[in-house]
Amino acid sequence: MDFFAGFDTLPSQLMFKELEIVYSRIVAAGLEINMTRGLPSVAQLELAGSFLSLPGATNFVSRNAIDWRNYGCLQGLPELRELVAEPLLGLPAEQVAVGENSSLALMHETLAYAFIHGLRASPQPWRKEPVIKFLCPVPGYDRHFAMCDEFRIEMLPVPMLATGPDMDTVEKLVACDPAIKGMWCVPKYSNPSGAVYCSDTVARLAKMPTAAKDFVLFWDNAYAVHHLTEDEVPNQPIARLCEAAGHVDRPLVFASTSKIVLPGAGLAFFGSSPTNLVWWLKHRASKTIGPDKVNQLRHLLFFANSAGLTAHMKKHRVLLAPKFEALEAGLSQGLGNMEQVAWTRPKGGYFVSLDLPEGCASRAVELALNAGVALTQAGATHPRGIDYRDTTIRLAPTYLDLETLGIATQVLVVCVMLAIAQNGGSQNSVHGHGMV
Amino acid sequence: MDFFAGFDTLPSQLMFKELEIVYSRIVAAGLEINMTRGLPSVAQLELAGSFLSLPGATNFVSRNAIDWRNYGCLQGLPELRELVAEPLLGLPAEQVAVGENSSLALMHETLAYAFIHGLRASPQPWRKEPVIKFLCPVPGYDRHFAMCDEFRIEMLPVPMLATGPDMDTVEKLVACDPAIKGMWCVPKYSNPSGAVYCSDTVARLAKMPTAAKDFVLFWDNAYAVHHLTEDEVPNQPIARLCEAAGHVDRPLVFASTSKIVLPGAGLAFFGSSPTNLVWWLKHRASKTIGPDKVNQLRHLLFFANSAGLTAHMKKHRVLLAPKFEALEAGLSQGLGNMEQVAWTRPKGGYFVSLDLPEGCASRAVELALNAGVALTQAGATHPRGIDYRDTTIRLAPTYLDLETLGIATQVLVVCVMLAIAQNGGSQNSVHGHGMV
Repeated sequence: MDFFAGFDTLPSQLMFKELEIVYSRIVAAGLEINMTRGLPSVAQLELAGSFLSLPGATNFVSRNAIDWRNYGCLQGLPELRELVAEPLLGLPAEQVAVGENSSLALMHETLAYAFIHGLRASPQPWRKEPVIKFLCPVPGYDRHFAMCDEFRIEMLPVPMLATGPDMDTVEKLVACDPAIKGMWCVPKYSNPSGAVYCSDTVARLAKMPTAAKDFVLFWDNAYAVHHLTEDEVPNQPIARLCEAAGHVDRPLVFASTSKIVLPGAGLAFFGSSPTNLVWWLKHRASKTIGPDKVNQLRHLLFFANSAGLTAHMKKHRVLLAPKFEALEAGLSQGLGNMEQVAWTRPKGGYFVSLDLPEGCASRAVELALNAGVALTQAGATHPRGIDYRDTTIRLAPTYLDLETLGIATQVLVVCVMLAIAQNGGSQNSVHGHGMV
Repeated sequence: MDFFAGFDTLPSQLMFKELEIVYSRIVAAGLEINMTRGLPSVAQLELAGSFLSLPGATNFVSRNAIDWRNYGCLQGLPELRELVAEPLLGLPAEQVAVGENSSLALMHETLAYAFIHGLRASPQPWRKEPVIKFLCPVPGYDRHFAMCDEFRIEMLPVPMLATGPDMDTVEKLVACDPAIKGMWCVPKYSNPSGAVYCSDTVARLAKMPTAAKDFVLFWDNAYAVHHLTEDEVPNQPIARLCEAAGHVDRPLVFASTSKIVLPGAGLAFFGSSPTNLVWWLKHRASKTIGPDKVNQLRHLLFFANSAGLTAHMKKHRVLLAPKFEALEAGLSQGLGNMEQVAWTRPKGGYFVSLDLPEGCASRAVELALNAGVALTQAGATHPRGIDYRDTTIRLAPTYLDLETLGIATQVLVVCVMLAIAQNGGSQNSVHGHGMV
């Protein structure tokens, strides 16, 4: 589909009327492209083909003498914990427990324990507090924010920088407000910007004094091994730094294999200090007799060892990196000379964050949707779905094949340019060369 | 091992001194037998051998067009819901959702939603109520009671009869106390007595007026298809009866395949009224992107259809029925002529409940433990683990092979007789023929 046929110029040099012609051609094409969520592609799912027949007939005997087919083993098979603890959580295996298929569910569960019983250091269960607040680096992950809504946790946005959350703001807020009990952190290849918390950020998060004695970091290491380049970012030593600073119970670490094997059929993990783990498992014991150890064994046999995990992630990278490169190329070519338009170039994870001039994001998303390309809803990256400046769009290039992604990127570029143009050039300083 | 060598009489006709000699022989044998929990035996686990290689390579396409390998499908695959809804929950597939591997966890989750948000009919979230009470038929399931402890729910015991809970007591209590918000029910092959709620009990549970507008039945259909005889008890029509009585939201139905395929690797289900299901899934959406559909497909391929499920349960029965028969025979032979000693003869499920004269249960369990046979702790069948009359012992014959079960039953018989004898014959009316 050549939406630009007849225009002998770069898209960014089109006049407003020409843009409208191109847009009407796109609408007429009747596209149906969905890039709302960070789904693995079908090709990625096929990497787990042999996973589907495992564990099969096996004589595996766990060293803890548990029959992996029967009840029990609340913390999870030690062999599996040893495989994942360091690469996925940056923790020793003894400090990690294996849950079901969703790390989100483990976060929800941990919040439920905090509300019903309080954390170890809580003066009282959170449900008895008049208000509970969480710091939310923004842009961030909509499902974290939805969980706050679910628990009626008040969300305080803090700006997300390329180095992680704005620590000056964070330190000031937590120091003075004892109602701030927690903070969402996606420390590596953050959703949606791809930002990596730098070592200074991590050190300050570990050290900072907090008014709440039971302040915790919900450390969602969702993209621990999800590298897009050779420059593989290591796990940040949050647990060690917190312990050194006298805040051993501060980090609650979560991870999963949802985007490693198969979404839904993966395993989720919780890790923290030894004392927090005891607290967590004590409450968990009222909830379940034990996790799915068949799936644990399936993982163990599929990866064999941590080298197997690393090798498997390289296969994902081979499929994913070209998509991020294509998106980057499309955005550069189409929007590279637009002022107040910027996007991230992540080294891992599943998303790119696109920033537009104030007041343009929701219009661009609306134009794209009308043209058959569903993007993540504008505002989704902000608490309660409200991006007051209306600037941020989350881009999810992983699910589409390269050709479709190329079309979607073209549509995105045209919709962004139209939205900016429609929003009026002057106040938003739009200076595309040929643009009105 | 012939503990009775040299005594030319039935165990029940032994004198006290002779009993002590037999007991010392048992202790000397150094047994290590664990019958504390209702675990499937290794032979039962092996029935699921082919389950371990599923789903394998398959072209399965769900009719809802969901890629079962990817995220989503919060309610679960429609094909799988159709397979299990009627036999396991007695509900239509549209009113059933598929969870993870533990029905206990779904009960815990539902309680959490009730505490955080309230049920649909709740005047306010349960966490805001000064006290929440649940009716607990006794003897009952220790993990239900532990969950009440976890949520600080006050437990009101009601006697469990052969026909289900004592409905005169139940009706009186729920009619006058608005703090009574729920009731635990294991309606079929109840844990531990094996009792089946009769149709009159079920009808009264459905109809009874309750002071709490949001009163619910936690209907734990744990043993829906776990028959031990040809006389297969059907599911009680609790949902239909509640609806007819104007209490459509009253039953919250739970079931799982833990004791059908493999504990831990099974699937758990929640079912209720259409409106309750919407309420439940709405909250669940904040917690997970979707369940493990690979395991759902594995179940679907393993059973193929409901006839496959029925056929599979017959294989369990072939393994389990002889154990219950052997236990029954051993108890009859050893304790059949003891006054105030009685036990149940379940037609399904995993347990037998043994009643001793007042004050003897914990002593019998202690004697058995000292002799190397671990029984379920006395009191476990009662709220907070306290059986004030100290009469009830839960027997779990499923895990042991027949020979070991025979030995354990002999030990049990001797320990029961000793405990009764040591407790003094007069006040407890022990009238074994040759007993002191």
